[in-house]
Order: sequence, then structure tokens, then C-alpha cells
Amino acid sequence: MSKNIAVIGAGLIGRSWAMVFGRAGHRVALYDAFPDALDASERLLDASLADLENNGLIASASETRARIRRADTLEDAVEGADWVQENALEQVPVKRDLFSRMDALAPADAIIASSTSAIPCHEITDGMAGAARMLVAHPANPPYLLPIVELSGAEATSAETLSRSRAFLEEVGMAVITINKPVKGFVLNRLQVAVLNEAFKLVEDGVVSGADLDKTLKHGLGLRWSFMGPMETIDLNAPSGIRDYLERFGPSFEEIAVEQSETRPWTSERYQRMEQERRNVMSQDQLPERTAWRDRRLMALMRHKMQAAEEIGE
Amino acid sequence: MSKNIAVIGAGLIGRSWAMVFGRAGHRVALYDAFPDALDASERLLDASLADLENNGLIASASETRARIRRADTLEDAVEGADWVQENALEQVPVKRDLFSRMDALAPADAIIASSTSAIPCHEITDGMAGAARMLVAHPANPPYLLPIVELSGAEATSAETLSRSRAFLEEVGMAVITINKPVKGFVLNRLQVAVLNEAFKLVEDGVVSGADLDKTLKHGLGLRWSFMGPMETIDLNAPSGIRDYLERFGPSFEEIAVEQSETRPWTSERYQRMEQERRNVMSQDQLPERTAWRDRRLMALMRHKMQAAEEIGE
Repeated sequence: MSKNIAVIGAGLIGRSWAMVFGRAGHRVALYDAFPDALDASERLLDASLADLENNGLIASASETRARIRRADTLEDAVEGADWVQENALEQVPVKRDLFSRMDALAPADAIIASSTSAIPCHEITDGMAGAARMLVAHPANPPYLLPIVELSGAEATSAETLSRSRAFLEEVGMAVITINKPVKGFVLNRLQVAVLNEAFKLVEDGVVSGADLDKTLKHGLGLRWSFMGPMETIDLNAPSGIRDYLERFGPSFEEIAVEQSETRPWTSERYQRMEQERRNVMSQDQLPERTAWRDRRLMALMRHKMQAAEEIGE
Repeated sequence: MSKNIAVIGAGLIGRSWAMVFGRAGHRVALYDAFPDALDASERLLDASLADLENNGLIASASETRARIRRADTLEDAVEGADWVQENALEQVPVKRDLFSRMDALAPADAIIASSTSAIPCHEITDGMAGAARMLVAHPANPPYLLPIVELSGAEATSAETLSRSRAFLEEVGMAVITINKPVKGFVLNRLQVAVLNEAFKLVEDGVVSGADLDKTLKHGLGLRWSFMGPMETIDLNAPSGIRDYLERFGPSFEEIAVEQSETRPWTSERYQRMEQERRNVMSQDQLPERTAWRDRRLMALMRHKMQAAEEIGE
């Protein structure tokens, strides 16, 4: 059943959400407080949808595009909405102002979600009349190429809001995780930080070059993680499963974990050093071209994953 | 130019190395101190090579098989060898005994490498006459499906040995990284531990289920890491590159890193809890079938990566 979706904020994240909902068959109203941003977004939308069609990830760019309309006011966007997805600036006052207005304007049973990557839900929704129907639905960047979404609510968020949101986002093809307790950075960025923190130390200490560090993931660890994740990986790496694996390797892994617990400041020297490592591999002026390469690789990988899931199983 | 390779130890790792060298066109002598292990290995070799052929990863299983011969003695295996790859038990005395015998038997210009995943090179090679030509070449498991190899030497290992080894292993299709200083667990397992340590804490604290934790990688972080690695990923995630990214997110990432520095013991309660999480997803008796699924997915992924590298660029 086709639903009405309001996407608030038409930057890369908002535009991506519009494609996610539109390609799943829903009607999308895309709004931005800045008309120029909305103009630009509409043009970029055409290009990205064409990319998806050319890469076999949607059947028809024009059919998806036809389901996405421009809304010139917040009122118009959220009127009759079943789902509202907010993608404004990462500033609490901006989001609180938007959420209280959307709360007043949206139908009583609409769910209102924020794409914030760092603000805890309660800081946005505390004290609002409709706090029970509000939550964070944090996607990866960009959501139309990476399916993961992290859901987290405030204490006031109802269990029903969380379960309905999970079901709805799964229906539109996203891979949803539920975060049960407030935690800084949610789950995805915490795992990313764990890797970056150790990676930076190894590079700073001269153990390995930045280029070789990346190889360790892209030709090693990242391969299994890209279709299993780290827990299933070790569950299948010892004859009797994960406990067997941990009994074998746990003691040496614990020693490594203790070494890794050394904290080290994230300074501008660190950032400069990491930039140097990357610029040894490619110059800064190659970044736009490489970003286009990344998106093509990501689209090809998504197509591969869909095929493999179908032919070999998920 | 076809080389002579001695593979010492015919378990999963040794057998995999035999396939890696054999499919690259080299002549392989496969030896194990236990004749029964060698018999079993020869049978398993046939099955794995057929798998590779069926999955489009080698042109001909029988041609590769024909280049792999059985050696019934260590002398026979290393005679005339250009490269010796040791895959015996992970025990220092076992490896030292083997290395000193291989040092005496192998041609003077042969390189002798250990597949050890945890023993520092110097503990194996200290004091040996041929220490300059000895190093660790640690693969992932199994090496015939995952290209990464971590090279590390002892102080006595010559720079020429390291550079010749890197060039040779790259020639046979592996992705090689060089570890410049001794470090516990080398690089791959240190990055794995960084992820597992944080993952286990999040699951133990009730923040997220084990199943959702895995989703965060397989539908999110792991996708980009499977063809770029973590440093290139963030280099492409801010307009001016990695430094720009770190200036934006570094301060909040540092706060997360400080939280993550809390050490927590790796206890049997932890192992039991993680087993429970996995058994919620699949029962133990499904592990063999799931392992076969993993290998099929991995082979399909390797094929996809070769095609994507060719069509879109590496």
C-alpha cells in the first residue's frame, strides 16, 4: 500500500531518502527551507535516479521520479503524511523547532523521524506533545546506496513507534537495527571509530602505511564482513562455533585489547599525518573522480549482493 | 617464469597455499609429517579446485592439480625450491626445528616463509644461519579465497627478502602488506580485535543484539571497506578529503574513543553470551552448511571484485 512520505531537508541525505521511498512505490513530498536548495536537489535527483537505472538498481528512473513532488512549504509537505523524515542541520535548536512544528502539522498517527547522526533522540523530542511517535532513523551516507538504518528512541518514544518504524523501513528495502539504550555515536560510528582509532595508531607508529592498512580491509577483513558481519565471521571460523573460536583466540585477543586501550589525542598533527598518507596514494584533485568511481563500485556491489542473495541465499 | 614451491604442512592453510601457487602456474611440492594428513589433503584439494573452477575463479582445476605433487619427505619437498611456505603447528619449538632443517636443505637463494598468525618472526628465526632469508607471510583463512598476506621480518631479515617476497606474492595474485615493526597480532587481527572488543561491549550492555550488530557491517560499514578500506572511505566522505572529514568529526570521534578505552576482561561468561547471541540466529548443527554457504558467497564476491576492477577500475 502506497504511503505519503514527507522528506524535510533536500541535501544529499534528504534527496537520498526521497529516492529510497520513491523507488519503493511511495509518494514523496520533498521540502527544503531554502528554495535554491530544492531547485538544485531536483536536478541532482534526476542524475542519481538515472545512475540507479543504468546500474540495474531500479526498473525505471522516470516512474520513481514521478512519485517525488516538490513541496514549497512545510505545511504542504507533511499534510496527510504517514512518515516524516527530517534531514535539517545537525543543531538541536533547529531540529527542535522543526519537530514541534511538524508535530502540530502532521496527522496524529504519522511517525516523525530524524536522520541525525549524533544527537540523542531525547534532546530533540523531550517535552513535545507527540514525543511518543518520534525517533531517530540514522542512515549511512548516502542512504540510497547503503541500506543500513539505525533506529533509536527517547524514553518517551513508544515501543509501537519503534516496531512500526522497523517494519516500514524494512518494507522499503532498508536493513534496520534497533539501538536499545542511548549511546554516543550510535552503533555504526562506534564501530568505525574502533577501527579508525587503531588504524591511526598503527600508521602513526610506523607499523604499516596507510595504503597497506586499507588493503588489510579491502582484500581481507572487509570481504567477509560485507556479507556476514564480525560475529558470524568468527562463528564460522572454528569447528564448534563462536565459543570454540573465542576459547582458542580470546586470551591473545584480550592482550591485544589491553594494548589498544591506550588513549591518544586526536590532534591536528594526526589529521595532517593521515592526509599525507592518503595524498601518497592519490592527489586531492582526484577526489571528485574517485568519488564517482566509489559510487559506481558501490552500485555494482549492491547489484552483486542482490544476485548472490537470490542465487546462493542470504 | 615457473618456480618451484615447497609447501610444508598440508592442513587447510597449507593446502590453500598449494592452490594459490599452483593456479599461478608454479610447480608445488606438498609435504606433511603425517602421511594420513597428506592423503586427506590430496582428496580435499580435488574438491576445492573443482569449486574454484565451478565458480569461475580458475580456468582449469585439472591443470592446476597437475602442478601440485606430493612430497613424502621434507628433503624431497624443499629440494630445488625457490620459495618455502611453512604451515606447521603454532608452536615455537616445532617451527624452529623445521626452519633449521629447511635452512640446511633448501637452496641458498630460496626464501623461507612461515604462515604463523601470532608468533613474531624473530622467535622462529633468531640465531639461524639463513635468518636473512626468513620471514612471516601470514595469510587470512583460507588463503585461496582471501588474497591478503601480511609480511613481517625479524631484525635479521634482509630488506631484499622483504621486497622480493612482496613482489613474488603480488605476482601470484595476493594483496600484500608489509609490517615494519613487530606488533602483537600483526595488523589484520588487531583491526579485528578492535571491532570485536567494541561489538562485544555493545552486545553485553544491551545496546544492540548480536544479529543487529552484524547487520551494521554487512549492510553498512563492511560494504565500502570491502573495496576501499577505512582510510579511503573517510577521504571520500568530506568535500576536501580525509583532513576535512577529521576536522569535522574528530572531536566527537575522540570522545567515543575515550569511552572505548575502558578495558573489560574476556571471560567465559562473555564467550557464552556471544554464543547465545549467535544461537538465536542459527543452531550449532547448521554451522557446516552455513560454512559451505560462506565459501560460495566468498567465491561469488571474489568473482564480482575481479569483474568490477576490470570494468570500473581498482
